[in-house]
Amino acid sequence: MTKNDFIVTPWSVKGDIDYDKLVKQFGTKKLDEKLLKELKSITGGTHHYLRRKIFYSHMYLDEVLKDYRKDNKFYLYTGRAPSGPVHLGHMIPWIFTKWLQDNFDAHLLFQIPDEEKFLFKKDLTLEETRKWAYDNILDIIAVGFDPKKTHIFLDTEYAGHMYKHAVQVAKKINFSTIKSTFGFDNDKNIGEIFYTAMQSVPAILPSVLEGKKTRVLIPCAIDQDVHFRLTRDVAESLGYYKPATILCRFLPGLQGMSGEGKMSSSVESTAIYTTDDAKTVKNKILKYAFSGGRDTLEEHRKHGGNPEVDVSYQWLTFFEEDDAKLEKIYKDYKSGKLLSGELKMILVDKLNSFLAEHQKRRKEAEKIIEKFMLRD
Amino acid sequence: MTKNDFIVTPWSVKGDIDYDKLVKQFGTKKLDEKLLKELKSITGGTHHYLRRKIFYSHMYLDEVLKDYRKDNKFYLYTGRAPSGPVHLGHMIPWIFTKWLQDNFDAHLLFQIPDEEKFLFKKDLTLEETRKWAYDNILDIIAVGFDPKKTHIFLDTEYAGHMYKHAVQVAKKINFSTIKSTFGFDNDKNIGEIFYTAMQSVPAILPSVLEGKKTRVLIPCAIDQDVHFRLTRDVAESLGYYKPATILCRFLPGLQGMSGEGKMSSSVESTAIYTTDDAKTVKNKILKYAFSGGRDTLEEHRKHGGNPEVDVSYQWLTFFEEDDAKLEKIYKDYKSGKLLSGELKMILVDKLNSFLAEHQKRRKEAEKIIEKFMLRD
Repeated sequence: MTKNDFIVTPWSVKGDIDYDKLVKQFGTKKLDEKLLKELKSITGGTHHYLRRKIFYSHMYLDEVLKDYRKDNKFYLYTGRAPSGPVHLGHMIPWIFTKWLQDNFDAHLLFQIPDEEKFLFKKDLTLEETRKWAYDNILDIIAVGFDPKKTHIFLDTEYAGHMYKHAVQVAKKINFSTIKSTFGFDNDKNIGEIFYTAMQSVPAILPSVLEGKKTRVLIPCAIDQDVHFRLTRDVAESLGYYKPATILCRFLPGLQGMSGEGKMSSSVESTAIYTTDDAKTVKNKILKYAFSGGRDTLEEHRKHGGNPEVDVSYQWLTFFEEDDAKLEKIYKDYKSGKLLSGELKMILVDKLNSFLAEHQKRRKEAEKIIEKFMLRD
Repeated sequence: MTKNDFIVTPWSVKGDIDYDKLVKQFGTKKLDEKLLKELKSITGGTHHYLRRKIFYSHMYLDEVLKDYRKDNKFYLYTGRAPSGPVHLGHMIPWIFTKWLQDNFDAHLLFQIPDEEKFLFKKDLTLEETRKWAYDNILDIIAVGFDPKKTHIFLDTEYAGHMYKHAVQVAKKINFSTIKSTFGFDNDKNIGEIFYTAMQSVPAILPSVLEGKKTRVLIPCAIDQDVHFRLTRDVAESLGYYKPATILCRFLPGLQGMSGEGKMSSSVESTAIYTTDDAKTVKNKILKYAFSGGRDTLEEHRKHGGNPEVDVSYQWLTFFEEDDAKLEKIYKDYKSGKLLSGELKMILVDKLNSFLAEHQKRRKEAEKIIEKFMLRD
């Protein structure tokens, strides 16, 4: 793989991701100023993920907003495939989903495709993915979603309501399409091949639950859009709207934007978990966070650091909501006034105060899981 | 296709079936005298389908009986994919299944894979297969199964209990295997490709329901064994017994043993439906039943008819339980004493008395459906 190569699929992210190229490659649209203005006009505010183009691409968001203007509500739908602990990268789309829920008073379907990870990971059992599902649900609830409007379900538990819709989708997708869409070969198991039909279902369920054609907006990382491209190809012929997406970049792994490209649950040195304690967070950032600083103090003071490649700075674009504060950090780091160690400590403090709150709500979540679960 | 070619798959039967060749082709075993003797020794009786080798092949029936001798009960499992009305051909495995249930006091899982027909038939909707499912269930109940030990379910309704087991099976079967087993190509939809995993599930459910490893015996037509061959390939690694099968020939279509080979719901002139009235039955048999008689009365009296190709005689091997009566018909027809028209009227009377009883029970079944449905 040369420097400019990268691969992004729902199951693998490799290389130095060029997010502009990705939009072209996936055939999605950029979130342009007109749409951002319309979002601001409706919500009366904005979100730093939008201002900073962390959420930067979409499909059919314009249609969703146009319909919303006509008093037609939409559902939100996102998901989490459980194969390990939740890290901060996972939380980015969820944090933004909560903002959307709050601002549009929208119901949210939260899919936990426990069978996906089971089917795609050789050594994982269904018992393990189920255990991780109920662990991860604590993090989802801790985000602060509205229990009256948020409906979480595991595919293996909710299949009684899903399978009949999945086969409607499945009938319209053949193996040739799956092969070219996901790059699958004949060695793929028949559960992997069928799975995308299950991921389509929550784009259909809102119309079923509401008893009328209902739009769905899916906030997720851009690697997932390919599933919904398939859903869009079949949705209208089944009597549903094409699902809309609003798509984000990945939170880079601690060791930098190249290489693995996103955080990985399975590579501990790339990730901060939501359950990491303050000391662990500090140690990981100090030890692993790739620095854009200079080799010596003298050099740094003279030439300044490079925030574009500095993971601590990049993470602050996700976690420091205050634009003015962020700008000051940027300038100070670039000018050499702010040292790498100091920048790291700003991030450590930010993350630890974020995680302290999160962990408190995560603990409380244990008692209210059933309020969120979609059982019937 | 030359005279000796035939194709038997779960979705297509064509040509003049050589049932002996089929056993070799499918790799199943013949029901030998030793096994028939063991069945007789346990049940204290026999069934004319066994005596006449209508049920003529099996896999692992010996294991089931050996375990039964040690007081280990087994479950029966059979099914019906609903895409139209039930005809007499469908009922053959069910009639035998009832005999097995009565003689072994066995629980029966009756799968209605409504999604199968939907997925495999281009123009069929899920609403239609569902409608046929509940129509066909009346025929199933009319067979006389024990409501306390018979559990009927539609895949689309019972998927909440099935999907998690289906993915366990699916993970162990790749597309290459499906391709070579069923002759599928890349144009097959991803529901068709996944479906065999759902057909495996009722071979697993008895162990789940009983909370211990439980054997399953599947009485069905021989074309279905290929699904269970896949199930057998994966069952033990999942902690279950390989499912056993006891396999029957097809009731030939009215127009004879060549050509379509079995009755078809979609070709009315090949089939007697369970809801046909006495007059319709008479007209169909007189008009369509392929005759092994001679061209003229004189010829017939002189040379006799050929019961081997005569559909009315062949059908009587399925429906006339009395061996002595059947033998007399055989001899009289072969000698020319019995004319084709007379033979046809023997069959008409036999079927009409069978159907009169069936239709009475079918009507009563409407009131007791819920006693049979597996809902939780």
